[in-house]
Amino acid sequence: MKKIAILGSTGSIGTQTLDVVEANPERLQAAALAAHKNDVLLEAQIRKFHPSVAALSDPEAARRLRSRYQGPTEILSGPEGVMAVATCSEADTVLGAMVGYAGLRPTLAAIQAGKNIALANKETLVAAGSLVMDAVKKAGVQLTPVDSEHSAIFQSLQGNAHKDLKRILLTASGGPFRGKKREELQNVTVEQCLHHPTWTMGTKVTIDSSTLANKGLEVIEAHWLFDAPYEKIVPVIHPQSIVHSLVEYSDGAVMAQLGAADMKLPIQYALSWPDRWPVAFDQLDLVKAGPLTFYEPDTDLFRALPLAIQAGKTGGTLPCTFNAANEVAVAAFLQGKISFLGIAELIEKVLSATVPVPVDSYGTIVEADRKARERAEAFVQQEQ
Amino acid sequence: MKKIAILGSTGSIGTQTLDVVEANPERLQAAALAAHKNDVLLEAQIRKFHPSVAALSDPEAARRLRSRYQGPTEILSGPEGVMAVATCSEADTVLGAMVGYAGLRPTLAAIQAGKNIALANKETLVAAGSLVMDAVKKAGVQLTPVDSEHSAIFQSLQGNAHKDLKRILLTASGGPFRGKKREELQNVTVEQCLHHPTWTMGTKVTIDSSTLANKGLEVIEAHWLFDAPYEKIVPVIHPQSIVHSLVEYSDGAVMAQLGAADMKLPIQYALSWPDRWPVAFDQLDLVKAGPLTFYEPDTDLFRALPLAIQAGKTGGTLPCTFNAANEVAVAAFLQGKISFLGIAELIEKVLSATVPVPVDSYGTIVEADRKARERAEAFVQQEQ
Repeated sequence: MKKIAILGSTGSIGTQTLDVVEANPERLQAAALAAHKNDVLLEAQIRKFHPSVAALSDPEAARRLRSRYQGPTEILSGPEGVMAVATCSEADTVLGAMVGYAGLRPTLAAIQAGKNIALANKETLVAAGSLVMDAVKKAGVQLTPVDSEHSAIFQSLQGNAHKDLKRILLTASGGPFRGKKREELQNVTVEQCLHHPTWTMGTKVTIDSSTLANKGLEVIEAHWLFDAPYEKIVPVIHPQSIVHSLVEYSDGAVMAQLGAADMKLPIQYALSWPDRWPVAFDQLDLVKAGPLTFYEPDTDLFRALPLAIQAGKTGGTLPCTFNAANEVAVAAFLQGKISFLGIAELIEKVLSATVPVPVDSYGTIVEADRKARERAEAFVQQEQ
Repeated sequence: MKKIAILGSTGSIGTQTLDVVEANPERLQAAALAAHKNDVLLEAQIRKFHPSVAALSDPEAARRLRSRYQGPTEILSGPEGVMAVATCSEADTVLGAMVGYAGLRPTLAAIQAGKNIALANKETLVAAGSLVMDAVKKAGVQLTPVDSEHSAIFQSLQGNAHKDLKRILLTASGGPFRGKKREELQNVTVEQCLHHPTWTMGTKVTIDSSTLANKGLEVIEAHWLFDAPYEKIVPVIHPQSIVHSLVEYSDGAVMAQLGAADMKLPIQYALSWPDRWPVAFDQLDLVKAGPLTFYEPDTDLFRALPLAIQAGKTGGTLPCTFNAANEVAVAAFLQGKISFLGIAELIEKVLSATVPVPVDSYGTIVEADRKARERAEAFVQQEQ
């Protein structure tokens, strides 16, 4: 029985992780849950899964929950409550599904507490890849990917030697605006961005998917997870989201993982690895899946992708800067403060204004993130 | 350094195996070569690769070769010469690339002599799968597949447990007559059959590919190689021959191997496994490969496929009967004695007239093969 703590249990990945727990009652137990402020859903999850401990990072939401719930689950509050869930003694594995940079601190704490990590929170690796991977090595814990693309790469690497890895072909659906021209993207609305063609996901990752910033974050994530130089990681547009990514080997063989566009499969594999569990969710029907097509991404129009890769190649704190600028830009776009194309423009401005430094501590990352957000907010103000 | 004996060195797989040997001079050595009757090509191979021993199963061809070649390579003659190559002490691995049932005896001898087997000669497993697999187990040797589909399945199984195997999706190009109607296949010529859309192969396998008998043989081959019940082996038409086959697991994940349609890759993997060697032949360009499509096979029109699967399910000597009937039918078609659609009709007649018996010895197989050929030849005579 694997006992898991879920960071971000009320989000898209969190709720699907609980579906996986429910489907595997003899294999998985939800030992601890943490969420931001959705006290209603967290309460329902507590009543269904009976974790030892649960936390809401928003103190007001925690107060509301406590007023309604007096049961055996201990209810914690604030960022320290989330940290307690991440490091709680009941869990052996932490599924990191918080959104954005906020996931970094609890993930690092979980690693240091000796927990195996199933990581959906890519921004953690983007902002502080070297710190996280060093901590994983030092603690001797397992880090398995939850992102469907990284799960596919991870599966395609099984039974092969790292020295034979030639290229990682990281597939991207291309989002809702694939094939569009610049003029057509001038007045794109938030609603249009949220209509993703193949995946049902949270808001942040859906916007990131529409700008291809998400694929940029994933390139950096793959760099850290699979110890691969950026030159070997090639994004490929694959609109059908059936081939979840591919690995090319030194002899020319290309291994791939295919499947329905259902996050429950990679979530489960991150928890079952190196085993598989006979719980199939959506099944792939290859004949019905229709033609599978592959294109090169339009990096002239979707600038966030090459900007992310360039930030990754430059290294130091620059990927952290990229991530922070993107988080601020997405929030500003959602609030109607900047345009769709303005997201990449804002990121580019912040990157240009930044001199990266080597990452020698958690403090360096905190400072780089703070500065990048400050700069990004200032640029947003100028736009108004 | 792996020292290999090649059975069928002058055929399509044999010559490509020697290309692989040439590309890997520090890893592979051609220790022994055997061919049927192409003395001119075998002589050139001897002068280039300097095997210790070489054989021609046709005594007249061996005489011609001896009259021209007096060098250090020992020249043997007749079926016993081929047996000597298959069991020669210089080789640790035998690449079985003879065509048809003729490959069975030397392959069994090689296994009993303790050689690892890289098997391209699928008819060996079709005719006598239980005997071959028992011999492999008893001798404790490795059996690696050379067929591109079986290599893809083998690669897709690496790093996974056999218990998690749910289905094998065995791809087929569909051959040159995919999508045709019965009327259009009435007067198909040999030449039309030999125009395979994606693969360049030997004559027998190209005709088998056009009737889908080849896919039937491959289903039976997969059954033995991967210890999978027939219900779990599903042929899928994939005209582009880019996805070389797929394996579906209990959790819904589907692993696949993709690559250019170049037999040198699976040949090399059969010899390098579990390693890969950094010698890439044709590279796959996924963007240029165009849409990848998948269809169900037309088993009403291409009867050889369901007939093979039914023979496999029935078991005993019936797969051997299927193979023998098909070999006779293909030869008769090549000689203009029966029509294209007559190939499957002939197989069906022979199968209907046969009562299979359990396979308890090599003698049983020899007898079943002999009877099936006799029956098939009699039906061919009736057609005249």
